[in-house]
Amino acid sequence: MKVSGKHYRSIWRDGRENAVHIIDQSRLPHVFETLRLDSAGAVAEAIQLMRVRGAPLIGVSAAFGIALAVSADASDASISHATKQIHATRPTAVNLAWALRRMRERLKDTPVDERREAAWAEAQAIADEDVALNEGIGRHGLKLLEREIEVVGGRPINILTHCNAGWIATVDWGTVTAPIFMAHDKGIPLHVWVDETRPRNQGLLTAWELAAHGVPHTLIVDNAGGHLMQHKQVDMVLVGADRVTRRGDVCNKIGTYLKALAARDNAVPFYAAVPSPTIDWTIEDGLEEIRIEERDEDEVRVVRGLDAEGRYAEVAVAGRSTPVSNPAFDVTPHDLVTAIITEKGIARASERELLALWPQEQRSKAFLT
Amino acid sequence: MKVSGKHYRSIWRDGRENAVHIIDQSRLPHVFETLRLDSAGAVAEAIQLMRVRGAPLIGVSAAFGIALAVSADASDASISHATKQIHATRPTAVNLAWALRRMRERLKDTPVDERREAAWAEAQAIADEDVALNEGIGRHGLKLLEREIEVVGGRPINILTHCNAGWIATVDWGTVTAPIFMAHDKGIPLHVWVDETRPRNQGLLTAWELAAHGVPHTLIVDNAGGHLMQHKQVDMVLVGADRVTRRGDVCNKIGTYLKALAARDNAVPFYAAVPSPTIDWTIEDGLEEIRIEERDEDEVRVVRGLDAEGRYAEVAVAGRSTPVSNPAFDVTPHDLVTAIITEKGIARASERELLALWPQEQRSKAFLT
Repeated sequence: MKVSGKHYRSIWRDGRENAVHIIDQSRLPHVFETLRLDSAGAVAEAIQLMRVRGAPLIGVSAAFGIALAVSADASDASISHATKQIHATRPTAVNLAWALRRMRERLKDTPVDERREAAWAEAQAIADEDVALNEGIGRHGLKLLEREIEVVGGRPINILTHCNAGWIATVDWGTVTAPIFMAHDKGIPLHVWVDETRPRNQGLLTAWELAAHGVPHTLIVDNAGGHLMQHKQVDMVLVGADRVTRRGDVCNKIGTYLKALAARDNAVPFYAAVPSPTIDWTIEDGLEEIRIEERDEDEVRVVRGLDAEGRYAEVAVAGRSTPVSNPAFDVTPHDLVTAIITEKGIARASERELLALWPQEQRSKAFLT
Repeated sequence: MKVSGKHYRSIWRDGRENAVHIIDQSRLPHVFETLRLDSAGAVAEAIQLMRVRGAPLIGVSAAFGIALAVSADASDASISHATKQIHATRPTAVNLAWALRRMRERLKDTPVDERREAAWAEAQAIADEDVALNEGIGRHGLKLLEREIEVVGGRPINILTHCNAGWIATVDWGTVTAPIFMAHDKGIPLHVWVDETRPRNQGLLTAWELAAHGVPHTLIVDNAGGHLMQHKQVDMVLVGADRVTRRGDVCNKIGTYLKALAARDNAVPFYAAVPSPTIDWTIEDGLEEIRIEERDEDEVRVVRGLDAEGRYAEVAVAGRSTPVSNPAFDVTPHDLVTAIITEKGIARASERELLALWPQEQRSKAFLT
């Protein structure tokens, strides 16, 4: 999407050079800077240091990392070394493992002298497929916003979002942001309430994305959304998801459930924007079946920002002796979800409607029972 | 309450000296330090710099400030000067204006040579009445906890609280904390989930109070409470209030409403601990009738804590160009409130039950309609 009027992807190759460019996300939202990475090691380091972040983008970065390794040395040993090196950066990241596997499959029976070409093509395909997924979500979500603007008539649509499901976590568009950017670009007036999303404040990244693309928005603390809904200042809630069950339970960043409750209490529709790889067809009941990750206590105790001199700094709001609990996600039960926006279309949060879009997943039900 | 095993009030006079002592709350939760104030000017400064905070404590501090002025010079001019000086520190604080008015009423017809004695006695009476109010809330709330421990059987009662309605905002006990401290002191096992309460993180003060008195607790971000309730880790929600309407709508720190929704969704009882001066008998519908204060945007943008060297420092999580909205309170409608714990007893959040405790307020209804 656009930054200061110029279009960017979050990762790209310039022409046929043996390098990729990224936005250094570890410096966002305060500083926008791009970096050129010219080796698998540099990609691994960028993943490690969270210069690239977001599940889809990490997968795409890994694929480009393999292409860089192959460009330097197309041997099996080189590919194997780069795969291990990159995998070790985030061993539990599903997209990363998936992308590395796909690259290996593509390259293993390819003659060594054709690997360079093949590796770049495959990595680029993975990136382009990610863009297409989000573009699909955007197209379907846009229809909702086109309908909504008829309803609200004459004023901007107020959307509330939580966490960052924006384009910089993907290659372009983002999930939540795709319909927002498309509507904005079509001249539909919008305003986004951005939850800061403690403890890690990823809402600041969302605010940065919206500002960079020129979409009106307002940052709020996570506590404020219910009050805004009570006072008719929110027309819809739109969030992403880390995992969606086959019946439409939405596992997303901690605090999402509270916004869904407020949405129901105030008759505000609640949508999740979700690419199909996020749907886990093997589980039904998100509350029962999803184990919620408990993250580092210091995410709660320590806040990062800029000091008075504009340098990165950290302050501790609580001391080491204060006991802390830090669950990272929660589950919004499907009956609080108005609909799920996917690249295939919009479905009510029910097994029947989700299966109507993915009939081939019927069989995984048989596997379940 | 206790700090490191020693009992404190948040403001006190040692014997008959012409001075009061306070806990310097501007340094909490990181540093516990007491200050001796020996003039009305020193009290005014302490209020101004938020060394004393919390509506009840500000009122009591103002009264002691007048006693200090009278000790130095008991003339009408001196009282008038001190009243103006203290009033100017927080011109909208209701308790402060009320306490100053009460002191003036008490002193105006008192002979000059009896004023010193009378002023100290009146200020002390105001302080003691505040303690009695909170002690009353504690006694009634304790009954709830004694009943609850029978229900949960064999494990601590898990209480979730939001913001700081603790003893340091009052003279002693606090509203929310009074039943908690009393139960703890009686040996009833408790554990308190403490919402950090963005933007101003007053939950850290609650955590400090609980730690100082030895009550087990865990700090969480405001987003986490719903998830904890879904997983049966909360037995009751207990919050304070800034204002309660005659039918029991509870206006409290922003985010309270979200916790009330989660409590209802998970069949967790939701209580507000409220001294009678907090009930506003002139209004019914809190959502319609209470104007919510919009506070300084920098409360959201800037976070205060300790830096790596243990010095107070601030970091900006968002830049000046990021639009911010900062509503300070929200209203929890009475149908989400299980009951209101007052110094007179426990009432369902309904006009009928509140009037049963305050029958004399029946007339303000006639005034309303």
